[in-house]
Amino acid sequence: MSLNTFGHLFRFTTWGESHGPALGATVDGCPPGVPLDEAALQHWLDKRRPGQNKHTTQRQEPDAVRILSGVFEGQSTGTPIQLMIENTDQRSRDYGDIAQTFRPGHADITYHQKYGLRDYRGGGRSSARETAARVAAGGVARAALEALVPGVKVKGYMTRMGDVTIDRDRFDWAAIDGNDFWIPDAGAVPEWESYLQQIRKAQNSVGAEIEVVARGVPAGLGAPVYGKLDTDLAAAMMSINAVKGVEIGEGMAAAHLKGTDNADEIFMGKDGPEYSSNHAGGVLGGISTGQDVVVRFAVKPTSSILTPRQSIRMDGTPTEVVTKGRHDPCVGIRAVPVAEAMMACVILDHLLLHRGQVGGLGPRGQIG
Amino acid sequence: MSLNTFGHLFRFTTWGESHGPALGATVDGCPPGVPLDEAALQHWLDKRRPGQNKHTTQRQEPDAVRILSGVFEGQSTGTPIQLMIENTDQRSRDYGDIAQTFRPGHADITYHQKYGLRDYRGGGRSSARETAARVAAGGVARAALEALVPGVKVKGYMTRMGDVTIDRDRFDWAAIDGNDFWIPDAGAVPEWESYLQQIRKAQNSVGAEIEVVARGVPAGLGAPVYGKLDTDLAAAMMSINAVKGVEIGEGMAAAHLKGTDNADEIFMGKDGPEYSSNHAGGVLGGISTGQDVVVRFAVKPTSSILTPRQSIRMDGTPTEVVTKGRHDPCVGIRAVPVAEAMMACVILDHLLLHRGQVGGLGPRGQIG
Amino acid sequence: MSLNTFGHLFRFTTWGESHGPALGATVDGCPPGVPLDEAALQHWLDKRRPGQNKHTTQRQEPDAVRILSGVFEGQSTGTPIQLMIENTDQRSRDYGDIAQTFRPGHADITYHQKYGLRDYRGGGRSSARETAARVAAGGVARAALEALVPGVKVKGYMTRMGDVTIDRDRFDWAAIDGNDFWIPDAGAVPEWESYLQQIRKAQNSVGAEIEVVARGVPAGLGAPVYGKLDTDLAAAMMSINAVKGVEIGEGMAAAHLKGTDNADEIFMGKDGPEYSSNHAGGVLGGISTGQDVVVRFAVKPTSSILTPRQSIRMDGTPTEVVTKGRHDPCVGIRAVPVAEAMMACVILDHLLLHRGQVGGLGPRGQIG
Amino acid sequence: MSLNTFGHLFRFTTWGESHGPALGATVDGCPPGVPLDEAALQHWLDKRRPGQNKHTTQRQEPDAVRILSGVFEGQSTGTPIQLMIENTDQRSRDYGDIAQTFRPGHADITYHQKYGLRDYRGGGRSSARETAARVAAGGVARAALEALVPGVKVKGYMTRMGDVTIDRDRFDWAAIDGNDFWIPDAGAVPEWESYLQQIRKAQNSVGAEIEVVARGVPAGLGAPVYGKLDTDLAAAMMSINAVKGVEIGEGMAAAHLKGTDNADEIFMGKDGPEYSSNHAGGVLGGISTGQDVVVRFAVKPTSSILTPRQSIRMDGTPTEVVTKGRHDPCVGIRAVPVAEAMMACVILDHLLLHRGQVGGLGPRGQIG
Repeated sequence: MSLNTFGHLFRFTTWGESHGPALGATVDGCPPGVPLDEAALQHWLDKRRPGQNKHTTQRQEPDAVRILSGVFEGQSTGTPIQLMIENTDQRSRDYGDIAQTFRPGHADITYHQKYGLRDYRGGGRSSARETAARVAAGGVARAALEALVPGVKVKGYMTRMGDVTIDRDRFDWAAIDGNDFWIPDAGAVPEWESYLQQIRKAQNSVGAEIEVVARGVPAGLGAPVYGKLDTDLAAAMMSINAVKGVEIGEGMAAAHLKGTDNADEIFMGKDGPEYSSNHAGGVLGGISTGQDVVVRFAVKPTSSILTPRQSIRMDGTPTEVVTKGRHDPCVGIRAVPVAEAMMACVILDHLLLHRGQVGGLGPRGQIG
Repeated sequence: MSLNTFGHLFRFTTWGESHGPALGATVDGCPPGVPLDEAALQHWLDKRRPGQNKHTTQRQEPDAVRILSGVFEGQSTGTPIQLMIENTDQRSRDYGDIAQTFRPGHADITYHQKYGLRDYRGGGRSSARETAARVAAGGVARAALEALVPGVKVKGYMTRMGDVTIDRDRFDWAAIDGNDFWIPDAGAVPEWESYLQQIRKAQNSVGAEIEVVARGVPAGLGAPVYGKLDTDLAAAMMSINAVKGVEIGEGMAAAHLKGTDNADEIFMGKDGPEYSSNHAGGVLGGISTGQDVVVRFAVKPTSSILTPRQSIRMDGTPTEVVTKGRHDPCVGIRAVPVAEAMMACVILDHLLLHRGQVGGLGPRGQIG
Repeated sequence: MSLNTFGHLFRFTTWGESHGPALGATVDGCPPGVPLDEAALQHWLDKRRPGQNKHTTQRQEPDAVRILSGVFEGQSTGTPIQLMIENTDQRSRDYGDIAQTFRPGHADITYHQKYGLRDYRGGGRSSARETAARVAAGGVARAALEALVPGVKVKGYMTRMGDVTIDRDRFDWAAIDGNDFWIPDAGAVPEWESYLQQIRKAQNSVGAEIEVVARGVPAGLGAPVYGKLDTDLAAAMMSINAVKGVEIGEGMAAAHLKGTDNADEIFMGKDGPEYSSNHAGGVLGGISTGQDVVVRFAVKPTSSILTPRQSIRMDGTPTEVVTKGRHDPCVGIRAVPVAEAMMACVILDHLLLHRGQVGGLGPRGQIG
Repeated sequence: MSLNTFGHLFRFTTWGESHGPALGATVDGCPPGVPLDEAALQHWLDKRRPGQNKHTTQRQEPDAVRILSGVFEGQSTGTPIQLMIENTDQRSRDYGDIAQTFRPGHADITYHQKYGLRDYRGGGRSSARETAARVAAGGVARAALEALVPGVKVKGYMTRMGDVTIDRDRFDWAAIDGNDFWIPDAGAVPEWESYLQQIRKAQNSVGAEIEVVARGVPAGLGAPVYGKLDTDLAAAMMSINAVKGVEIGEGMAAAHLKGTDNADEIFMGKDGPEYSSNHAGGVLGGISTGQDVVVRFAVKPTSSILTPRQSIRMDGTPTEVVTKGRHDPCVGIRAVPVAEAMMACVILDHLLLHRGQVGGLGPRGQIG
């Protein structure tokens, strides 16, 4: 895995800065014969697109994705797929100030320290715009999954935003796509809206927790040690901007549990093994069980806020930073489609790895 | 990163099963000229060794590591270092029963499903014995760190075990190495002992939370997107047996925070930038800030317990599993030296990556 | 090294088909602070550009390269550099026939067999147009080499074209850039021209041998076994379209030699070790000696010829193939700038690898 | 591909020096369920073993391979296979002289320059003993090939040794295993023997050319650009000690040919496409055609000769080197089993890669 590349057999390299001419993803290793067009990818990009959702940045970017290679007559050819998104709303302005100042909580200072120079316009590579390229790559992964294992579904939703959380007793899959927070409870939307409104008025921002589920994943994907399915999922989610924690199944709460509570007991169902519960989050010893694969992660509050914060300039002099401009008070909202994309890429990659080493897309060992 | 290999420039591949003749690590990419001998590695292995600690399994393994290659006249040569640990206490016994049964919470069932066969003696590759090889590799990484950046220190400790937690107000670095739980508070040891005793008597097990800190890491290590320092740390920790969650800095708690609370404000100190706090855990935009790098993770309770649990056999018939034998009631204890090893490997790897791309072992861009 | 990616620390992924909207290279791992602009890259692209040279295809492609990312205010930022070349002269035509027929000597049949479908317009990924992307990536590598080790020079030239060869006694570096064959002997140009004219008139094509030299490469680059400098050079050259053999130093002729003839004896010069000869081609045990690194390779004759050849269609029926259109009678001519680009990329990659593992850009061990 | 690792999905890392306690290969990615035992691997090791063949070094090494992991009850488990060969005949002696002197044609000087230190006993990693580990890994690959595609056969033989060459008109597959030169012509053995005897008497050594053929390889293996089957074969062969050139099919001779001569015309046979000839060496556009895959390479004459050669010591003073000891006058002989091993590994790796991306072990696209 190189430094701007994610994945083993199905892998993508993202490129581009938020204020350059374009950004995109170079996708390699897609199986041939997968039906693919720009409209299918655009569907997913529209989910994360700025300006679509009243709670996210009002930067107006069409985020129109173009397929420049690797697709012929509506199908993937098995060669690299170049996905390009042109930047159109770059608002030319004076960067004189921001160019010399390190915004707290941003990568400005560490980029400067590492490279000795940085593209200071909008955060360069550390901008959340980089995630548009992942969503495009994830669209390719979804299309390939659909072709190879039609039953697989990947779905993300918010479970917490600061002080508000979902009520798992009211969990409603059907509600997720019907609201701007991607929460599984239509009735809770007004509360979430008013909470976020209050954060915004206070010139503040707030963190969030997102959960992503992959349903219909065959048992047997993953590997015992460093190629664990959950190792790659942890890397996938932690690589998203602003993510500070990743959990599989019980997650950090496992530290509180006793062995008797945590056991997922096994029974024989009519189509194979079934489990009494899913504390494991669908992964045992790094390999999928066939249950839902469940990943959860936390996103820190947006560092760009209107409340002044102390910082320094490149010359070491002190300054106060107030970030004006088009920023989401909760970046967790837009992290939902990004995390879905990463989950789709990881599952597809492990399907191909499993098929390569073991043959076939599902279990090799039979039970019963 | 291949499936049994960890790292980019400094990388190791572990091999071996818990009941085969030996296990070990093939370490590649170590800088030349690093002082290295078996005694230095053995020091770290003794920390995780079974039978050393009254709270861990009483399996008696000397875990004596041999260096078979890559070291000449007391120094690394820059070529692969083979570290081998022979298995000596394998207790020959009848595996007839365990061979046909899937233990709940173990990888037995998923290995069988993936590969169609498995080494059923003691868990094969999914045994915690695999982590001995990591500790040996981590010993090489520590020696190289010491040679390249003498100030770097890596330290792990437990922060929670089921219902007991550390009191951060009583945090004492000096206490960590003086107790069997690696906790930073000598006064709390009796409470932890009596809690674990009670778990054991109840034929149960318990989860744990571990924190690892790397101090003295230069600013500038890491990369913006998929090569983030925290991405590799998340993968490193999640790859350890039984880990279900990984946090950097604030971790999952970031979802609860507001932007004003989470900001690490920046000031100019006499040796460079300083921060008002370390919510970020020493990593901004995937690149180290020069503050402590702080990682936390949760380990699930040992699945091998004396309390019976429902399961099935390979033929699908139901059975009840009671795991007798030499098992730790809290595997989190032995995870401490393992996590330290992984941290050391990640930091060294990123030092070499940074030196390769940028030159030098520290920041390229000056401030002030 | 993934399937469309070349390199370890400095690596590039090429993408695009000859008749799609664009092609390019995603370059990752370039050191930061390297002066870089489109004009510098265009210089090298113009060398291989069709229509420039009277002996190569008259397809008119400006091959204008655009830098879409990774360069800011005239310097590389250390993040991925996207190089895009739009296809402009695609001549819309009826592909009905070629779509169903496998051209002998081309990848049509193997692509169809592998993937089950192919972009039949102009060869897709197997088109020599892919090499434009390499030349662009090589331009980045040259700029980085110039910044890191100013003395390094990379130069390629033809040494044979069918029956005509260069006379090493008349070798003239200065002549290479002054003729359309890149041969080191201005006086031989008329003979080469008339030979190629005759091949063209005979509706035939011809193979070629190219040599590439890297001068000023520091001693110490490479690694002992699979990371040998010559292993990567062999892979680099063999990956170029139509290449069938690669040699380092004496190359295949080494099979004819005796040990006494082949020995490069060592003497102490005023700036370090010197050698009586360079049978080794500048590489001993996979590591550079500081002498010229010398690679030679053979390119097969263009398979697209006007003389009819027997083949089959997708349905298995026989057919006769005559390839009309804009094809070079000797593709070896355009392979010269491509091979230079690959050499530059390999040398840079090994400089970065060496710096990462060992520190510094040159020898660690002193002599004398 | 890391620096001591070869392969993508099926990959191995070799480790160990010629005079350390042991050497070996860590093999990762082997499919599960492959029948495997030490005797099967030993069969191939015995072919290259010193002391077996009257024309090779008389060093007495049993080269007994032990499987330390990854095999259970006679089958591969899908986890890493550790293959260890202990060094037994290390002849303790005084290395004082050789430790300070650089032998011409050896890696002594470049290792010293790169790493600043080296294991001077017998060449360390650059010793031909490293190839024993490859042969062991190749034995695993052969077993896996036999399990997956029973028809595949890999065979190597010498085609030239200095002034003597094989006569292709007398090519006899059955003869290859019956003589110490692995030549396909029993009648030529006396001439080869007397030639080598004469070289040895003259205190000299000689180069060699070896050809390796893989028969029964399905069409469709490989990839268009950097993942070409022939790119990996070139890297595989060039990574063997002393190799200076690699050819596929026509090889360097392609530079002499015309397009009309080089065309492999295509016809429809009863089981699929057939070709009039195999100038391509079984690979078109980087992908196998289903014909014999043919690779040829040249090995330089052994640099260790009894005839004195000029060199220098570490302190820069001049010296004369005469290499006494147990050295092969033609290392090409022992390169034959090594090259077979590398071929087997490359073919297996590409079978798994193809199965991963495309599904199945053979062509996806049908003809006729």
